[in-house]
Amino acid sequence: MKLKNDTFLRACRREEVERTPVWIMRQAGRYLPDYMKVRRDHSFQEVCKTPELAAEVTIQPVEKIGVDAAILFADILTPAEGMGIDLAFSPGPVIAQPVRDRKGVEALRIPDPRESVPYVLDAIRLVRERLDGRVPLIGFAGAPFTMAAYLVEGKSKHGFPGIRSMLYRDPETADLLLGKIADMTAAYLAAQIEAGAQAVQLFESWAGLLAGREFERFALPHVKRIMEAIAPLGAPRIYYAGGGGALLHLLSDCGADVIGVDWRVPLGEAWKRIGQDMAIQGNLDPCALFSPADRLEAEVRTVLDGVAGRWGHIFNLGHGIQPDTPWENARLLVETVHKLSRWGVR
Amino acid sequence: MKLKNDTFLRACRREEVERTPVWIMRQAGRYLPDYMKVRRDHSFQEVCKTPELAAEVTIQPVEKIGVDAAILFADILTPAEGMGIDLAFSPGPVIAQPVRDRKGVEALRIPDPRESVPYVLDAIRLVRERLDGRVPLIGFAGAPFTMAAYLVEGKSKHGFPGIRSMLYRDPETADLLLGKIADMTAAYLAAQIEAGAQAVQLFESWAGLLAGREFERFALPHVKRIMEAIAPLGAPRIYYAGGGGALLHLLSDCGADVIGVDWRVPLGEAWKRIGQDMAIQGNLDPCALFSPADRLEAEVRTVLDGVAGRWGHIFNLGHGIQPDTPWENARLLVETVHKLSRWGVR
Repeated sequence: MKLKNDTFLRACRREEVERTPVWIMRQAGRYLPDYMKVRRDHSFQEVCKTPELAAEVTIQPVEKIGVDAAILFADILTPAEGMGIDLAFSPGPVIAQPVRDRKGVEALRIPDPRESVPYVLDAIRLVRERLDGRVPLIGFAGAPFTMAAYLVEGKSKHGFPGIRSMLYRDPETADLLLGKIADMTAAYLAAQIEAGAQAVQLFESWAGLLAGREFERFALPHVKRIMEAIAPLGAPRIYYAGGGGALLHLLSDCGADVIGVDWRVPLGEAWKRIGQDMAIQGNLDPCALFSPADRLEAEVRTVLDGVAGRWGHIFNLGHGIQPDTPWENARLLVETVHKLSRWGVR
Repeated sequence: MKLKNDTFLRACRREEVERTPVWIMRQAGRYLPDYMKVRRDHSFQEVCKTPELAAEVTIQPVEKIGVDAAILFADILTPAEGMGIDLAFSPGPVIAQPVRDRKGVEALRIPDPRESVPYVLDAIRLVRERLDGRVPLIGFAGAPFTMAAYLVEGKSKHGFPGIRSMLYRDPETADLLLGKIADMTAAYLAAQIEAGAQAVQLFESWAGLLAGREFERFALPHVKRIMEAIAPLGAPRIYYAGGGGALLHLLSDCGADVIGVDWRVPLGEAWKRIGQDMAIQGNLDPCALFSPADRLEAEVRTVLDGVAGRWGHIFNLGHGIQPDTPWENARLLVETVHKLSRWGVR
């Protein structure tokens, strides 16, 4: 089936587009009244695990905000349960028995995603059916270092000292953990693509915790292995490196087609440092969505001007949208990006 | 009174030293059994507000770990109470009524530190007396943007969206808030120096939340104003920029004598980007203190080698020491820095 709006996929391939595609990290989420309505009757995990509900909230921002791509509703820790992790949300992730030592790592399984997360794959099929070619669907997973940060810490904690200490205290165990997560993730993303995801994003939300030397040693090789494993499936692959401003020069080698950058480095400068044979995604400060309308337009223009004249830009925030963002401003953002980037018209 | 060990102060002035001085951010704290013994009977705030107790825990790491400088025990939010903020710790800071709007900012007072924090100044006098010239004492304060992040959020929260949204939503109110904190802080640090602090550090723990443009607009001018206000007092001034790897080129203009850098950028590279007419402090990854002894020595050597042959380096961690660090490793760190940096001997 031909897509009605394939600007996102074309931008991933650095092809010409009539206007810059835009989607928003965490676009299916708490800032949207429609999402909150679903959450009134269902917990976060219920929504993740019920294909009907996951599909509903995945599609909401396409209809309400007008984004150029949908992204599957799930958590980066969703596939960890299949590895043997006892996971709850309250509201952030809470792992009953964090993975702290060799024994804990050895006990982790590498599940078949068709058995461990059938609901994710069903949700993808349902979303594709209901989107009916309006926009493409993005699948996703957490990158191994970021996943490991949660598995070792057991929750979100500033600086994630657990995994970072392990890199010094017991690097062999860290290697084993990261390798197992990478194997799981490669299979998980492949299954998502086979179920219908038309692109995938690997979230390295905590890239910024690592110095370049540790990033090259513990994060990058696993990312590269995942990217290479799914390359034959042909879906564009995005690597988002949160806080990775000091690591950009290392990213050209990560195997992705697109690099997602956060808001802390001007986008044009980031693209030069990454290398312009990759596409780029980003990078409005999520807090800019609290601006008055004229200021928001100026901020969007600054991002677009930073990369104008070069194909291969997907507009996004530099980080997930804040839950207290006025949803009308998210819609205004999408309209403004489309208005200011009518490249065919200029 | 002449200091018995003034290597820290000489390094701040980029003078020759016989060995590299070292201290540890949060060296008076939970990793030390002696500190935990005091905390068994006294809350965090009691220790901050009782000169006798604050002096005791300030001196502990000098005696137990062998650091080349003491740093006053207090919290960066300690002086906020004098501005009218209702502050508690449980265990992180909790502000009953966060500063969210113009009215809240206008209500903030700029107190005379002799009236608002007499216990801090008494603690400084007591520490100086008890140190009896063994090592110098460092005073400190939070930098305005970092302080504002807490005052607006009311607690520690990932990304501190409150202050960052305010920069877009209402930059005039943000300016007023930052200006008031800067005025308070200049007076607070001046009072600390007058009471006996022989150097001061301004903690910009959350520098890394800002893009360069916002850092230059909202953080840097206030830092510079504080640094200039206390310059006539002659005590070396350190500016620590946590997460500031992408901002280093902007720091040469901040008015400090020394820049403290975190662990995410190699120290030699950081020094070049900042400019070598300033001294530098840092930057071992705090998690390296979980290494086996031989690995720790290698890590210390890497930091020292990065800046060898140039005067003006103060060894430190790149961030506060983790509470679960084995205290013996902190002592081993100090011994190793001293052993590997016998510049007079080489």
